[in-house]
Parts: sequence; structure tokens; C-alpha cells
Amino acid sequence: MTEPYAKVSYRVPYADTDQMGVVYYGNYLTYFERARNQLLRDLGLPYQEIERRGFGLPVLSAHVDYKSPARYDDLLEIRGWVTHRRAVRVQIDCAVFRDEQLLAEGHTVHALVDLETLRPTRFPAELAAVIDQEPAPASP
Amino acid sequence: MTEPYAKVSYRVPYADTDQMGVVYYGNYLTYFERARNQLLRDLGLPYQEIERRGFGLPVLSAHVDYKSPARYDDLLEIRGWVTHRRAVRVQIDCAVFRDEQLLAEGHTVHALVDLETLRPTRFPAELAAVIDQEPAPASP
Amino acid sequence: MTEPYAKVSYRVPYADTDQMGVVYYGNYLTYFERARNQLLRDLGLPYQEIERRGFGLPVLSAHVDYKSPARYDDLLEIRGWVTHRRAVRVQIDCAVFRDEQLLAEGHTVHALVDLETLRPTRFPAELAAVIDQEPAPASP
Amino acid sequence: MTEPYAKVSYRVPYADTDQMGVVYYGNYLTYFERARNQLLRDLGLPYQEIERRGFGLPVLSAHVDYKSPARYDDLLEIRGWVTHRRAVRVQIDCAVFRDEQLLAEGHTVHALVDLETLRPTRFPAELAAVIDQEPAPASP
Repeated sequence: MTEPYAKVSYRVPYADTDQMGVVYYGNYLTYFERARNQLLRDLGLPYQEIERRGFGLPVLSAHVDYKSPARYDDLLEIRGWVTHRRAVRVQIDCAVFRDEQLLAEGHTVHALVDLETLRPTRFPAELAAVIDQEPAPASP
Repeated sequence: MTEPYAKVSYRVPYADTDQMGVVYYGNYLTYFERARNQLLRDLGLPYQEIERRGFGLPVLSAHVDYKSPARYDDLLEIRGWVTHRRAVRVQIDCAVFRDEQLLAEGHTVHALVDLETLRPTRFPAELAAVIDQEPAPASP
Repeated sequence: MTEPYAKVSYRVPYADTDQMGVVYYGNYLTYFERARNQLLRDLGLPYQEIERRGFGLPVLSAHVDYKSPARYDDLLEIRGWVTHRRAVRVQIDCAVFRDEQLLAEGHTVHALVDLETLRPTRFPAELAAVIDQEPAPASP
Repeated sequence: MTEPYAKVSYRVPYADTDQMGVVYYGNYLTYFERARNQLLRDLGLPYQEIERRGFGLPVLSAHVDYKSPARYDDLLEIRGWVTHRRAVRVQIDCAVFRDEQLLAEGHTVHALVDLETLRPTRFPAELAAVIDQEPAPASP
């Protein structure tokens, strides 16, 4: 069955918690990265392959809305999907669930850059085609 | 001399970098936390004191705009200031500089919660008064 | 099939790398924690259950030997097993593999403490029995 | 006044704590890195300069003994000094203090490697001379 997003499972270690007994807010940006990695893998274009072709996708902006705290040992599902692609940038939305409860959601906006110059560059047709496709089924 | 923000100096360790050779995007949320801590200390109300009074300030949302990358061994100045306070929440804006170059800016929105119930609660008059004051001079 | 260790799979995010292009050395202690969590779960005694009974297992010492670097997007297998248990402490050995290559190994020594007092305490018979058993098969 | 070690001050953020209310054990390896960075800077050879000359100092092993927990908002002093230098490796000892109380101590062993090949290489005379000197006074 195909879902319109990529997903990864993630078990929360003690390392991710803080003294309020919940996951520290900054760690959600790493959770989002895990979903983005899986999304690109599902699309057939792992991030390493993007780098091998001489491109990078640095983050221009990031946003997180926190709904309910994740806790130690929670088994999270982190989801990611492409929402917009423009000439030189792309937005990826992410959401973190425990069972079917939404804990946090947000997005990152990325520029496509040439890794040599670190300057923004237009998506080549082949990368654009990959990113614009519907996501393939998430791997198990 | 009084500045309208709190500030902390921070030296970037190797730990904060990633394989693109720059500070990983998620670490800026910890940088923002350092400025918030200093801001509350400058206001005469360290976060520990807030917890001692039975309150917490969990993050409802966070936003970062990345302008230019910070790098290993950079000596950063991280600034924070209160922008809005409402009945049960407060927004704190932060910015990260290297020399006088702005590298990143953003904000967090926090709820005041009762640490027992973790439910939002109105700022008591004494906390409101502290947060609504102009920030005191940043400590050196 | 039963193996004499617990194991977890872990995909390396960009967040874990540093500007040398490999996993930052401090992150291996979190990797070890993931194996320990799985080990306790396999033994039928998740760490949360230990805390629920009023105990903690803070780390007294940690040691890591780095053999070969892990890299971004590597799918690691992290293994953990009990090597010694004394009256008030226990040593857990861990190892990190990529495919069958050993990347790092080491151990942590933990005290059993009463969470109220944070003072070392002898393993109650029931905890000792669980920890002294051979590990159950790792969950998939 | 000259002290036989380099030192850095470090304020513990919430990010470094875990749900036991103390600094997570893995973060001490980043603390040690901060002291090593300062040590090399005090010796007149910042790590960036080592990399500029084509060398790296990856970690071969790390050890930490935990004496007493550091906590949120603690102002730590982290100290580092060279204990042994051999043909292709060097040991650096580190210690973490709050006021004059020792919280943790340990060491790392580093290989000198050629950044091109990542293979161990002998310390060139000029690097050896720098590392073998007594540390200069720690900067304030």
C-alpha cells in the first residue's frame, strides 16, 4: 500500500530527554532529518547520491509546532513529504507521531546548492523529476 | 551600558559541526536556549528560580531562519529578548552573530505551565512584572 | 535463534557526523545506551520498569575504543551484553558494527542507586536474577 | 600566572540534561573536546591550524570516570593537559569541576593522521615541539 509520505520508526533514548522528563525541543529537528533521509531514499535518490552528484540541500528555515511531549523509550513514527518545489528550493513537511497521536509537526525549506560554490542553483531536470514524483511506498 | 537584549558568547566545538563542514541546523535551538537562559538571568529570574516556584516554560513552537553558516571554532554571540507576552504565553526572539554578521535568527513561543499539572497557567503578577521589564544590561 | 547479546539497528543521521565526515566520537555513548536499553528490554526488565521500582543505573565510568569510523547513512548494528555483576554495580559491554565490521567497542559500569537518595544500593534478588540470566533472543 | 592545564568555562544548558535531572553521560566527551580545543589554542596551535597543515587528530579511545553529577545551569570549569606523546599518538587528560569539586575526569588518546589518507603519521618536529611544551597560561 502506498502512503503519501515516507516514515521511519525511532526509539527515544535517554540522551534525547531533558530534566523536564520529555524530549528536548531541539531534537525534533534531528527527527525531521531522519524522515527527510527516508523520503529521499524512498524517492530513489538518497541524500548521499545528491552529494555524489555535486549538490547539497542546506536548510534555509525550520519551523516546529509542539503539540504533546515525546518521552523516553517512546517508539515514534516520523513522517516526511514534499510540499512545494520551486526553481531553487524545496519545502519538506514532517510530523512526529506516537501510535496515532500527533506530537509535533513542522517543516524545513532547503536550497539546492552547488557543493563547490555553496551557491543556490536550479534543480536539474533529473533531480526535479525525482522530487516532483509521488513518494513511493515507505520501506518497512 | 544597557542593550535591549541579553547575550552570551559561545565557542563552536567540533561536536556541533556536520559533514558539510558547518554547524548542524538543529544546534541553533540549543544556541537560542543559551540566550534565553541568559535573558532570564539578566532579568533577575533564572529559569531554575521559575522551576523552584513551580512553573515551567515549555516550547510551543520554534522557528529559525538560517542566513549564513557558523563554523568550527567560531566565537559566536547569541542574543535574546522578549518580544510579546500574553496571558499564558511569551515569545522570545533570538539571533546568532559572528563578529557583527547575522548568521541566524528566529524565535520560540513558550507557555507558562504549572509543573505539577503541566497545564498552561496565567503569569502571576510577579512573573509578569519581571518579564515585562526592559532587560537589564547583559552580564559580561 | 538466541544470540548472547541484544542488538539494535540504527541509521546514522547527518546530525551525528562532524566536519571530518565521520560520526563524532561522543555519539558512540548514545549508541551504547541504545544497546543497553534493548538489552534490558530483552531481559524482560525495561529501564522504565527499573525506574518504576525506584531504582536508577547511573554510569560510573565509560570506555570506548574506536576502530574504524562510522559514516552518514550507515546502517549500524549496536550490540550489548552483561559482562559482570557485583553487589552494587554491573558492567555492560557494547560493540558497534557495520555489516560484520567492528567499528567501535567499549563498556560502561553502572551503580544501582535508590532514586530517592541517589545512593548506591545492593541489587534486590529479583533484579539480580533478571540481570544474571542469559539474554533472551534479540527482538527483530 | 601559569597553570599546568588549559581551562574553559562552560554553562550547562537544559539541552545537556536528561530525565534523571543531571548532565547526560555522553556530553562529557564534548566537554573534554572543549578543553582540548582550548589546550591547543593555548599552545599556539589551534586545531584549525593543524587541519590547515593537512593533519587530523581522530580519537582512538576515550575514557570517563564520573564522580558527581553536573546539573542544569552549573558553571563548569573544564581542564585539559597533555600527558603522553609518542611517535604517532598523544594522550590528553581532562577533568570537569564545579567550583573546586571534581565531577568527572578521563582522557582521550589521539592518532596523528594525514587528512588525505586518514592514515597515522609521525608528528613532524614542529608539531611535536609545540605539543611537548608546557602549556601556556590559559586565556581568561
